[in-house]
Amino acid sequence: MELDYVLLQLGTAVFAVTGVLAAARQNMDVMSFVIIGVVTAIGGGTLRDLMLDVPVFWLADSIYLFVAAGAAAATFFFERRFRATFSALLYLDALATAVFAVLAIEKTRLLGFGPGVAVVMGVITGIGGGLIRDVLTGQPTILMRRELYMTPLLVGGALYVALLASAVVAPALASLLAIAAISIVRLGAIRWGWAFPDWLTYKPRSSQ
Amino acid sequence: MELDYVLLQLGTAVFAVTGVLAAARQNMDVMSFVIIGVVTAIGGGTLRDLMLDVPVFWLADSIYLFVAAGAAAATFFFERRFRATFSALLYLDALATAVFAVLAIEKTRLLGFGPGVAVVMGVITGIGGGLIRDVLTGQPTILMRRELYMTPLLVGGALYVALLASAVVAPALASLLAIAAISIVRLGAIRWGWAFPDWLTYKPRSSQ
Amino acid sequence: MELDYVLLQLGTAVFAVTGVLAAARQNMDVMSFVIIGVVTAIGGGTLRDLMLDVPVFWLADSIYLFVAAGAAAATFFFERRFRATFSALLYLDALATAVFAVLAIEKTRLLGFGPGVAVVMGVITGIGGGLIRDVLTGQPTILMRRELYMTPLLVGGALYVALLASAVVAPALASLLAIAAISIVRLGAIRWGWAFPDWLTYKPRSSQ
Repeated sequence: MELDYVLLQLGTAVFAVTGVLAAARQNMDVMSFVIIGVVTAIGGGTLRDLMLDVPVFWLADSIYLFVAAGAAAATFFFERRFRATFSALLYLDALATAVFAVLAIEKTRLLGFGPGVAVVMGVITGIGGGLIRDVLTGQPTILMRRELYMTPLLVGGALYVALLASAVVAPALASLLAIAAISIVRLGAIRWGWAFPDWLTYKPRSSQ
Repeated sequence: MELDYVLLQLGTAVFAVTGVLAAARQNMDVMSFVIIGVVTAIGGGTLRDLMLDVPVFWLADSIYLFVAAGAAAATFFFERRFRATFSALLYLDALATAVFAVLAIEKTRLLGFGPGVAVVMGVITGIGGGLIRDVLTGQPTILMRRELYMTPLLVGGALYVALLASAVVAPALASLLAIAAISIVRLGAIRWGWAFPDWLTYKPRSSQ
Repeated sequence: MELDYVLLQLGTAVFAVTGVLAAARQNMDVMSFVIIGVVTAIGGGTLRDLMLDVPVFWLADSIYLFVAAGAAAATFFFERRFRATFSALLYLDALATAVFAVLAIEKTRLLGFGPGVAVVMGVITGIGGGLIRDVLTGQPTILMRRELYMTPLLVGGALYVALLASAVVAPALASLLAIAAISIVRLGAIRWGWAFPDWLTYKPRSSQ
């Protein structure tokens, strides 16, 4: 229990650090870093909780808020050091995203919603913070890039609810398999540029 | 009842298709199409339900979600064919927007809110999905264009609550008149470029 | 009580006017002005109420909505006159932002949330409307500028909850001191360009 909680906070810190490193631009001050880190780390879960109409998680436990803010501020002051470990941090980010998405699916199912809504809540939790960050900092969102980001969450989430429904494996194993599936596809996207093939990527008619 | 429901789902599909056709850009993959279609189709109603603090409609009935996702995916694979019927789809979109806006006003009034709030909820339902789509895909929003989009919703919504308050016509007729008013003004904007006259359009001082 | 209410409405009108003056661009029609004014004036409080899961303030009292819409429409028609008083309006805006932020902190504390969450709600109330306006009109948000905007809200909010916790002064005096602190730092930012020093502002490695 305690260890789980520490790991969740570590994941939150990783989201804030990678979020800030991706968004940092000339002339942003330390306060902008803090806001960007916090928004990236807790934005997705906030959207999820608003839609589910349950208490927003960081209002009930504001440690998440302080961890994200502290990690973002630390990134400002030790940016070179964090930047040097950026690819390792991205792997941790992929793993943490998978964990939070599966937890979101569990949370949604426990509230009595069906598997489709649960998978969507996993996707929103996983991509929401990054989307809000990109919009607030004027960057193109993941909707405009070929990089696989939403797809691992959708595929892994669907695997998870299918495993639970079929009951062929224990729930704990289903969670682990889903986390593994999401992380591995996302790692492949980061490391080897996995993406949809050309025939699943849009080309305007004039250039065909 | 059943027919009504089928028509609502058809409207949802139209929102997804026109939303995707308007936002499609080079390098978007099929998954981006799905997210954009879903966001356009259900974004406005989601904002409305969050503000009204009622269950988000697609959580209670996830058919809307699947219809929007399916329609967006179909648009990816049959884009040329859908593109060829784009202007007909825009007329359907105008009609469906009018219907959903009037339904939103009804829903808001049944919750006990006043006419001003009800009209605003009609506008939010009608424009919210498109606004979120434009923001997520980096397009200029309707706030920056002269095309009439919000105004038909505001005018038709105001007509609707005025007709209901004055009780000169039956509620069902009031709905029909409001839907007709919104659709016709919107159709005029699409077909003949109706817009506010110059004196109701901003020109910075230096260019006057 | 009555006077307080009138002053709150005056503050709402100021938010709408300054919001519209900051966002006005060629080709926006009067309806865009109204939407932008309303979003700027009530957006922050809307986000706050959604996260706190309390009734959105302008649904319970739609006068805020009409005041913001009316002020925005008036700005369209008398833009030159309003523009001429822009710097005076900005000072009023700073003061009103401080008042609304302190009220948001009070509201959050009365709901039983801790001081960290309360300060965050003050910041969200103060910056939310401007953020949404900038995103909807395609302008760079305050996260990308050096101008002090979030920091006065954070510092003044922290001062407020610290004064309340330490109980060295009466609550009413704590409110006044917090409002003064936020307004003065914000005024300094507007008037003399106060900003974080260079060492608290990000410079990409390559340009160092």
